[in-house]
Amino acid sequence: MPDAPSLSVWAVTGLGEITPESDLAGVLSEAVGPAAGDRALRTGDVLVVTQKVVSKAEGRLVPLDHHDEAAKVALVEQEAVRVLRRRGTLLITETQHGFVCANAGIDLSNVKDGIAALLPLDPDRSARRIRADLRRSLGVEIGVVISDTFGRAWREGVTDVAIGSAGIRPILDLRGTRDAMGRELVATEVCVIDEIAAAADLVMGKAANIPAAILRGCPSSWLGEGSVSESIVRRPENDLFR
Amino acid sequence: MPDAPSLSVWAVTGLGEITPESDLAGVLSEAVGPAAGDRALRTGDVLVVTQKVVSKAEGRLVPLDHHDEAAKVALVEQEAVRVLRRRGTLLITETQHGFVCANAGIDLSNVKDGIAALLPLDPDRSARRIRADLRRSLGVEIGVVISDTFGRAWREGVTDVAIGSAGIRPILDLRGTRDAMGRELVATEVCVIDEIAAAADLVMGKAANIPAAILRGCPSSWLGEGSVSESIVRRPENDLFR
Repeated sequence: MPDAPSLSVWAVTGLGEITPESDLAGVLSEAVGPAAGDRALRTGDVLVVTQKVVSKAEGRLVPLDHHDEAAKVALVEQEAVRVLRRRGTLLITETQHGFVCANAGIDLSNVKDGIAALLPLDPDRSARRIRADLRRSLGVEIGVVISDTFGRAWREGVTDVAIGSAGIRPILDLRGTRDAMGRELVATEVCVIDEIAAAADLVMGKAANIPAAILRGCPSSWLGEGSVSESIVRRPENDLFR
Repeated sequence: MPDAPSLSVWAVTGLGEITPESDLAGVLSEAVGPAAGDRALRTGDVLVVTQKVVSKAEGRLVPLDHHDEAAKVALVEQEAVRVLRRRGTLLITETQHGFVCANAGIDLSNVKDGIAALLPLDPDRSARRIRADLRRSLGVEIGVVISDTFGRAWREGVTDVAIGSAGIRPILDLRGTRDAMGRELVATEVCVIDEIAAAADLVMGKAANIPAAILRGCPSSWLGEGSVSESIVRRPENDLFR
């Protein structure tokens, strides 16, 4: 099967600790530049960067005693625009971005004790900036996905999803294409960027502090315009579970 | 970065049309046997097979006029154990497996007009059978995931998830491991098999009639016991959105 569709995905290592003083795109650019050989970023690749390093680089850090449950809840309530459900100290919230996730997306792992990482203010903009910076530094036209780890309704376990994107079409709209029986497919709008975030998480691991991955082999038709806020966040009036 | 974690995933092609007369594991075994060269199935790989071919091979087909909306709704109501939400002819349902999905998972695409494909009765068992048959025919110890395309609450677009599995641990439990700051990670239970189903969907496409994919490069620690029904389906008493 030499021409069967295929993809490869690998972790980007060697970024070191990212802080508000870091030039994240500059650090990424060094890690995935020509010195990376076969694994150097190329036009047509998709770069996935985790929320945590984006939040750190953008200074989205606030003081928080990790052992003070009341302070945690107060911070979550401050960051959320709405609390959908509450069970003990777990709050299922809607953020100002329209994301529905646990605890307003506030992150306590892999940040220093006494500090909490908030979500980037505008993760689509974060993705656009990284994309523009890497185009400038490396001369590549890529897709960028900012990923975060969310729980889901009805299913146990967390998976990584896209909270921001640039240079890649968030939804692959197969409506109007025909299935193998020649009939028109309806309502098959695949959220490609969430599937890409999930694939990237498989190589990034949670404890190894790997904050980025590269996916190679996407059809060039996937690259294009769009953002998570416009295409993926479901409007409350279309939502049956809010 | 020669030793950065990496994965590759590719589509399995050349299966031909699967019918209730097909020996699905036999057909798969030919397609991914030694003749496939570098892409032959090896011990440690994960094979993802879509619900559609499993349903067809298991004869989970019933007559249905695709243009009769009332008949469609009646079939959905018959297959569902509960209807959670209803909007026009879209029903968000709970199936007898405990899955929450649109229209009881009934599938009208890539099946002949006049026919609907129902979900496999026990997709974990389907996965176990495929795994045992391929062990017998090819001598490989693999993970098997049966995938299907589900919508989600709060986010637009569909993604592929696991509805059955065998030979792979559904949840990668990182509780008790330590993050890069040396602190214990809590509540990081990654649903690896859903992320694998998503990665496989990136190469399978919806219209090209590709019903399987192989993922290579999983850490051997991922292989093991478990099933979707035991590990992924959230018990109603733990569910905040039912």
